[in-house]
Order: sequence, then C-alpha cells, then structure tokens
Amino acid sequence: MQLLKDRILSDGKYLGNGILKVDGFINHQVDPVLMDACGKELAECFKDSGATRVLTAEISGIAPAIMAARYLNLPVVYARKTKPVTMPNTVYLTIAPSHTKGRMVELIVSPEYLPRGEKVLIIDDFLASGETILGLVRLVEAAGCELVGVGTLIEKTFEKGRTMLEQFNVPVVSLAMISAMNEDGTIAFLDD
Amino acid sequence: MQLLKDRILSDGKYLGNGILKVDGFINHQVDPVLMDACGKELAECFKDSGATRVLTAEISGIAPAIMAARYLNLPVVYARKTKPVTMPNTVYLTIAPSHTKGRMVELIVSPEYLPRGEKVLIIDDFLASGETILGLVRLVEAAGCELVGVGTLIEKTFEKGRTMLEQFNVPVVSLAMISAMNEDGTIAFLDD
Repeated sequence: MQLLKDRILSDGKYLGNGILKVDGFINHQVDPVLMDACGKELAECFKDSGATRVLTAEISGIAPAIMAARYLNLPVVYARKTKPVTMPNTVYLTIAPSHTKGRMVELIVSPEYLPRGEKVLIIDDFLASGETILGLVRLVEAAGCELVGVGTLIEKTFEKGRTMLEQFNVPVVSLAMISAMNEDGTIAFLDD
Repeated sequence: MQLLKDRILSDGKYLGNGILKVDGFINHQVDPVLMDACGKELAECFKDSGATRVLTAEISGIAPAIMAARYLNLPVVYARKTKPVTMPNTVYLTIAPSHTKGRMVELIVSPEYLPRGEKVLIIDDFLASGETILGLVRLVEAAGCELVGVGTLIEKTFEKGRTMLEQFNVPVVSLAMISAMNEDGTIAFLDD
C-alpha cells in the first residue's frame, strides 16, 4: 500500500537493533485518516474470508483492527495483557515473548467474546518474528474457533514471521513489507 | 446519546463496588460501528473548539479517541502507561490512581507529539472520579499546551469528576451520564 510505505519513509525511523520507530503515526501518536485507509484496505483483502470476528492484541493493534472491523462490520476483540476486574475468573491465556519489552507478556481473552465456532481474522500492527500473532492463534485454537486470515500493517520479512504462519494455511496480508533496514537508516521494501 | 445509553442498558452490567462492566462493546470486545457513531457525535460537539490535537490514555480511550479524531481530522496521541524503547529519554510523565487497577499508574507522553502551543481536546471512555483526566490535563500543562475540551463516552455523575474539571473552564461532554447504579443491577441516567 503506497500511502503507508510513503509514510514509513517520511516519518519512520530505524533506531538500530531491528527497532523501527513508527510512533508518530501508529503507536503513540496515531494518524486516524491513515489508519482508516489501512483498515479499509485490509477489509477489502478479507471481505470474502468469512470472518465473524476480528482479534488483535492491545495496545497498538487496536487502531488498525478497529478500522478494519468497522469496514467489515464485525466486532473486534483485543487480547488484554493484564486481567481487569471486569473479566471472569476463567479465561483463555497464553504467553508470548515481546521484543520491544524484552520479556514475556500475557495475552488474555474472555471466553464471553471468543465463543466456540467463530471465524477469526487476526489484525495487528506488526508481523515481525510472528510470536504475538502465534500467541493470538493459540487463543483462537483454545477457544475452538477457526483462523481465517492474518492482516498486518507492517511486515519485517527478514524476521521470518510469515514462515511461522504457513502451517495454518490462511491468507497473510501485510500492507507494507520491509525487506531491509540498514545501518545508514535506509529502509527497503520487498516489492520495490 | 440514545444509542449508547440503550447499549449500556442492554449489554452493560453493574458488578458492584462502582464497577460498570462494558467490556462487551467498549473495552475488551469493541463494537466499531457504535464507536464510530460516538466518535462522530463527540466530533460534532467539539467541531468549533479550535482543537489541534486529541489526547487520550491507553488502553480503552484509544477507540473513542481515534474515531472522534478521524471526524475532526486531527492527530491522536495516547499517553502510554509504560515507556517503550522507541520513546526518547526525556518525556512528560505524571502519575494517577487507577480504580480498576487499585494502584497508581504512570501516564507518559513524548514531547515530540505534544509540542508547545497545541490546543488539546481530551477524549476518554469514562469520566468517573476524574483522576485519569486530571493526569492528562497535567501533561497538557507540562507541555505548555492549552486544554480546549473534555469528551467522554460514559460519565458516572455520582463520582463527581465533573466538579474536579470545573477549574479549567472548558466544555465537558459525556455521551451517557449515569446518575445511579443500584444494587439490584438497575442503571439510571441523569436526563431520564
């Protein structure tokens, strides 16, 4: 998606150590018009997926997921990283490593909002190592639901997360596929 | 806003201890169509506020804030509760008590996204005691910005947060104003 790639080039910044700073338009300051356009594009990609529900992870998955879900007219569920007092005592919980936090995080979903038999589209901001998305897939499986697709804003193809997802045999769509982030700060896309 | 009040009555649940469970449509599962309608309504209320930026707090403020900001065509900044590696070392930080977490939480904004002189509209999911919103106002003041309004989805008028905000002399709008949550589970609105 050219709009997103252009924005990454103009406002993204490679900080080294595989960390791409996109907090000027995705995960601290958010450009809602860009997110809306990305959500519309992801919704178009998955309009025939049969999805009945969108699943994401707090925090930075919420903006793209809610925008895509609005176009698909589906509820969004975001996995919580801490269990709030409003959640029942028995939940679906998995742990996944967080690279930006440097530790394991919990991903928690209430069974109320992931009932058996739902067809689930996972939307997140990044596909990097795929660990967070694999965690979400484990929640989908624990709930007896079916994964029908995975959509993300930005994929770092060199972190091989896509390979980890092949086993599920569902469409995996990323709106911007970064093939290299170089020490001189330049960013290259797969399809350029 | 009748649509939101109807949804609170049909899907909200009073859990006791002042806790209203709305995680079926606002803060775990999200109804993006409802959030879009709420965002549109808040945007209409503040269209003449002169706001140049929307500020909210992660996590559950993100959905209403991004929808309102989309209609206002403004960037959203969400205060983080932990400092990610992508944030600079020097930030605006305040602490505020969280009732649902039962402890103090940090609210952190990067100076990059709250430059001096901005006119800030705060949007959040709840106005209860007002502590989180007061924390956001302190960040606005620390940044040398001007508060121009506060908009929330649900106000619990009996927790008196509105009184705390009177000192700022800006419009405070809540789309559903709950005046009582009773032990028998019934919920009453201020204007019914």
